[in-house]
Amino acid sequence: MEVTRQNFKDSLRTVYSAIDEADFLAIDGEFSGISDGPNVSALTNGLDTPEERYMKLKKHSMDFLLFQFGLCTFTYDEAASNYVIKTFNFYVFPKPFNRTSPDIKFICQSSSIDFLASQGFDFNKVFRHGIPYLNQEEEVQLREQYEERRNQSNGSGATSYISPNSNKGPGSVPEEHKDYIKRVIEKVGSLFTTSEKTVDLDPCTGFQRKLIYQTLNWKFPKGLHVETLETDKKERYIQVSMVDEEERKIRERQKQEREQEELNDAVGFSRVIHAISKSGKLVVGHNMLLDVMHTIHQFYCGLPEDLNDFKEVTQCVFPRLLDTKLMATTQPFKELINNTSLAELQKQLKESPFKTPKVVTAKGFPSYDTAQEQLHEAGYDAYITGLCFISMANYLGTFLTPPKAHIAARSKLIEPFFNKLFLMRIIDIPYLNISGPDLQPQRDHVLYVTFPKEWKTSDLYQLFSAFGNIQVSWIDDTSAFVCLSQTDQVQIAMNTSRYAESYRIQTYAEYLQGKRQVRDSQIQATQSWGEDGWVKPHYAPVPGTTTGGYRPSSVKRSISPIQEEQAQSTPTDGWSGQTHTHTDQGSKKIKTDGVCVRTYAGVVNSQTSEGWLKTQSDSSSMTPIQEEAVDETNDTVGGAWEQPPLANQSKKGRKVKKRKTDDAEATSLFDVPQVW
Amino acid sequence: MEVTRQNFKDSLRTVYSAIDEADFLAIDGEFSGISDGPNVSALTNGLDTPEERYMKLKKHSMDFLLFQFGLCTFTYDEAASNYVIKTFNFYVFPKPFNRTSPDIKFICQSSSIDFLASQGFDFNKVFRHGIPYLNQEEEVQLREQYEERRNQSNGSGATSYISPNSNKGPGSVPEEHKDYIKRVIEKVGSLFTTSEKTVDLDPCTGFQRKLIYQTLNWKFPKGLHVETLETDKKERYIQVSMVDEEERKIRERQKQEREQEELNDAVGFSRVIHAISKSGKLVVGHNMLLDVMHTIHQFYCGLPEDLNDFKEVTQCVFPRLLDTKLMATTQPFKELINNTSLAELQKQLKESPFKTPKVVTAKGFPSYDTAQEQLHEAGYDAYITGLCFISMANYLGTFLTPPKAHIAARSKLIEPFFNKLFLMRIIDIPYLNISGPDLQPQRDHVLYVTFPKEWKTSDLYQLFSAFGNIQVSWIDDTSAFVCLSQTDQVQIAMNTSRYAESYRIQTYAEYLQGKRQVRDSQIQATQSWGEDGWVKPHYAPVPGTTTGGYRPSSVKRSISPIQEEQAQSTPTDGWSGQTHTHTDQGSKKIKTDGVCVRTYAGVVNSQTSEGWLKTQSDSSSMTPIQEEAVDETNDTVGGAWEQPPLANQSKKGRKVKKRKTDDAEATSLFDVPQVW
Repeated sequence: MEVTRQNFKDSLRTVYSAIDEADFLAIDGEFSGISDGPNVSALTNGLDTPEERYMKLKKHSMDFLLFQFGLCTFTYDEAASNYVIKTFNFYVFPKPFNRTSPDIKFICQSSSIDFLASQGFDFNKVFRHGIPYLNQEEEVQLREQYEERRNQSNGSGATSYISPNSNKGPGSVPEEHKDYIKRVIEKVGSLFTTSEKTVDLDPCTGFQRKLIYQTLNWKFPKGLHVETLETDKKERYIQVSMVDEEERKIRERQKQEREQEELNDAVGFSRVIHAISKSGKLVVGHNMLLDVMHTIHQFYCGLPEDLNDFKEVTQCVFPRLLDTKLMATTQPFKELINNTSLAELQKQLKESPFKTPKVVTAKGFPSYDTAQEQLHEAGYDAYITGLCFISMANYLGTFLTPPKAHIAARSKLIEPFFNKLFLMRIIDIPYLNISGPDLQPQRDHVLYVTFPKEWKTSDLYQLFSAFGNIQVSWIDDTSAFVCLSQTDQVQIAMNTSRYAESYRIQTYAEYLQGKRQVRDSQIQATQSWGEDGWVKPHYAPVPGTTTGGYRPSSVKRSISPIQEEQAQSTPTDGWSGQTHTHTDQGSKKIKTDGVCVRTYAGVVNSQTSEGWLKTQSDSSSMTPIQEEAVDETNDTVGGAWEQPPLANQSKKGRKVKKRKTDDAEATSLFDVPQVW
Repeated sequence: MEVTRQNFKDSLRTVYSAIDEADFLAIDGEFSGISDGPNVSALTNGLDTPEERYMKLKKHSMDFLLFQFGLCTFTYDEAASNYVIKTFNFYVFPKPFNRTSPDIKFICQSSSIDFLASQGFDFNKVFRHGIPYLNQEEEVQLREQYEERRNQSNGSGATSYISPNSNKGPGSVPEEHKDYIKRVIEKVGSLFTTSEKTVDLDPCTGFQRKLIYQTLNWKFPKGLHVETLETDKKERYIQVSMVDEEERKIRERQKQEREQEELNDAVGFSRVIHAISKSGKLVVGHNMLLDVMHTIHQFYCGLPEDLNDFKEVTQCVFPRLLDTKLMATTQPFKELINNTSLAELQKQLKESPFKTPKVVTAKGFPSYDTAQEQLHEAGYDAYITGLCFISMANYLGTFLTPPKAHIAARSKLIEPFFNKLFLMRIIDIPYLNISGPDLQPQRDHVLYVTFPKEWKTSDLYQLFSAFGNIQVSWIDDTSAFVCLSQTDQVQIAMNTSRYAESYRIQTYAEYLQGKRQVRDSQIQATQSWGEDGWVKPHYAPVPGTTTGGYRPSSVKRSISPIQEEQAQSTPTDGWSGQTHTHTDQGSKKIKTDGVCVRTYAGVVNSQTSEGWLKTQSDSSSMTPIQEEAVDETNDTVGGAWEQPPLANQSKKGRKVKKRKTDDAEATSLFDVPQVW
């Protein structure tokens, strides 16, 4: 269902009930661009920390506009054993709602626009008929404006005068306007002597209107209703009407209702996001970090500086998220799926061992034909994402004893994938953990190298030729990370570089420390976040996380967390450890201004009260970790040109080594890293 | 005529001939926004210097996209006594032409987009079918890329291999690719033993393609043509063909032609601007400074830092410009026209004493109906602008003895308006003088005041209440210019402010000096402009300009230049003084890289050789300067709220004073300031 400004109000009830009845929601956004930085490789370094990646996306991606929002609601019909879907394709545009409202500027990236154009994207629908929106701060401001006006008019007798100086009297009418105001008073005074009930004054300037309001309030404190209206030509003029008290009250109420409707219209599409948020339903997306960031940035608030603050806001807006790209690149799926782009994923999930989910379109909704791809239309992408989630969730059911064909969105089987958002092209951190601290892979084998800007990858290979295979991640023209295959080579490299003049080598630890020092001094200089109504984050370090070294594999998406520490507190069903740590966080409030006071604990509790499926899963029936398959998707690190020679051999060599040290991980379920 | 990527190539010949045959051209641009600064009042202070205004527009307006360019060509038909017009409406979009081409980002301003949308602007046409373009630097780069490739292929034997390392031989094939390359060699080798002439290899990675090119060049140095092609699915694969020497030359030539066509396609819409520029024809626009800046910025080069450099580039790109808004706000028109917005101007020029020009649409071109307004479509606006120009030019003819009904675009009567671009909302400098130094109004009566950010206009009125009427021009939250009505009040204000703590007052001269110091230190720190191929400007101060005080009127657009100095060197016909100073500048070259070597002198000479009309005008028949009419247009300084009380009276008082000191100006023609 296409939703624009023209049918938004009429569709809203339909949207609300679709969200209410759904088992889960799938979303997708289309943006006017991806990165305003120099290039994507600068945006996505393979050794970014989650903090760095977040800051880069915040800096280089948030000035684009999310102008199409896809929502597909999935409701399971037990009787028919199928999902009933409702798809909405919202066009969104920040049309200024009046002359004082913010005039949003946004960036367009030619390649993105051109790509969407080639997919038949309808820009006219966006720009002509896009649904407006306000973020929460703007909504509060507008509401206060209305309230202030209303209070003024209530306080100053029977008329709804706008000026705060309305009792100053006529003394403040400048000399050159006195004649004009005198004529206005005469014209309005005629209302009391003739049978006319209403008089329209000629259009005039804002200053003159101010004078008229002041003067009439002083001259005729009762019995008049004064209002500014607009002609067809958008010229503003004042209408003065004789009213009795009853009539005045009616007009006052009508005005209030009109204002409330104006306010709702201005909040516009944000109301849909609020409804999604309030529902607490599972929200599924594919490679959804940018979608989540844009949604919060556009419809809630500017993104916080600090990653932990972002996580808190995200948990407030989207209490349960699931990223199908992260799911597809994690055990047991990563062995079976070699390309996790949405289109390819959907294709592969049609083949054995997966099953195409049974889905029917709800009555009155246009149905999508998956044979005829309509990719990159947000509604269609949301729909496909939901299908992928169902296929993968149901596949997990085949591991149960007895196997289950349908796995509900509330099943504990999918809980390990909650709130972990796929991180593009990071070598050793597969996801951003929204509901806890991020993985902290050891990077002892990583060097930070600075060099003249003429250097190319081949220069780095040459420099480190003595150490066998290396992996290069460019940072900018004059610096890169170099991953050595063995940590004990690091000291040798450091020693040999000591007297080098053209280049400089730091260990990863030294690099981090230097960076931290720069950041700390910047924070001290500009810190003002705490005043903006955000509670400072108060994550207590989770035991075993910061000290328990998580040793990365050299191959992306091959996660091998150490679970010894966690096992100590994990009950026998293998699940409640996860739930437990969730509720640990429950006491946090996200925003202090009262607009959003949901706590994560509240959401978790309500989930529990709904009576989630308590599956007794036999962990020994799960597939063990398999790290041998090295499938490169189109989102993998480094292009063919930057691949070091003999890379495959090297990977194998390192893998063998790694396995020796990480035996503790062998019992992991689905290989979803569970750091806490 | 609508021109998009789809019909651009076919239309180009029509466009060229329309430009060639035209007497003058009218242009207009539509942009994705106006200002990315905080607000328009920050962009347009009433006391900006031309340098400041240029820098603000450059900083806050150039990141928007000019996405519709209107061109209307006007050709006078002597026999029919009418103009024949051809209107083109070009849709422009920087579609990346290949994977290495620049990925342009541009800003959209919601209010501008919303405004265009409300006018029915077709964004789909822009984004789906907009004509691409390159600026001159990008064009040169692309040409060099092609040439480099061609030279390489010529230098390395019979095949057109791309890799610069093509003679390295097979030693550099990595171990894991050796099998693959061996199979490729076998497959290609079969060409020499079978009847097949061509073999298509399977799609492969860029690295593999590089290896294939290298290896084939080494293995089969002659007799093969190797080329990378794309499948329908955009997968790249290599095609290898057996060729004899003749066939090879044909293919080489075809390839060269294909490349030239690709280059032309990439230069795209810029070719239209080049044609306009080369024609040297008079280019008419309405309030055209932003149009000119965007056109140069988008299709020629990034705008220079220095205003004088910008003027030089502008003279190179548009040797003769005429701004109808400046014309309409100058004598003898300003007495007759009280609203100079394009739509209103056109309406007023339909009434006496003006005549609606006789215009017919050329065969094959859709005609506009001026009764049905299509304003803000660039082609229509260009057309209307041309009509306004003709009406005003012809009106000048009524002053001749005998009167002339048709005044040609080459007439000396309109020369005073050449190359003077309207400056929005500057109190005392009506235009930017593209072909010379700008007016330097005395601002002895202006104070620069800084104060706490809580201050409002009323605080300033109160502060200066002892001095009668003042005029306030806000700069930012904590500073403003205050114009006193009498210069001798300045010293009193300075004296009384000496011990003030909350505010600070500087004379305008002190303010300018401080600003200059800041700028000089910045320039010293960042100067690199001279290296970019731009000749440093070498304007010699024109005698009498810097010292001959030009005393501004307090009313915008009431120009009263002193002409005593100029009169000394002005011959009796009253015109050649103007021409003379033009040719003074003729020796300047604009760019040193040879791309644009037209000199202004060349243009002027060609004009002269065309035999311009030598009108003997009787200056005593012209209307004298009339300063009494104070008509506020929608572009005037200050809103109703900032108007000081009694402003009208004050203006009259000052005017009387001023007239006493400026008697020398009474002989001015049309009141176009002629400073040199």
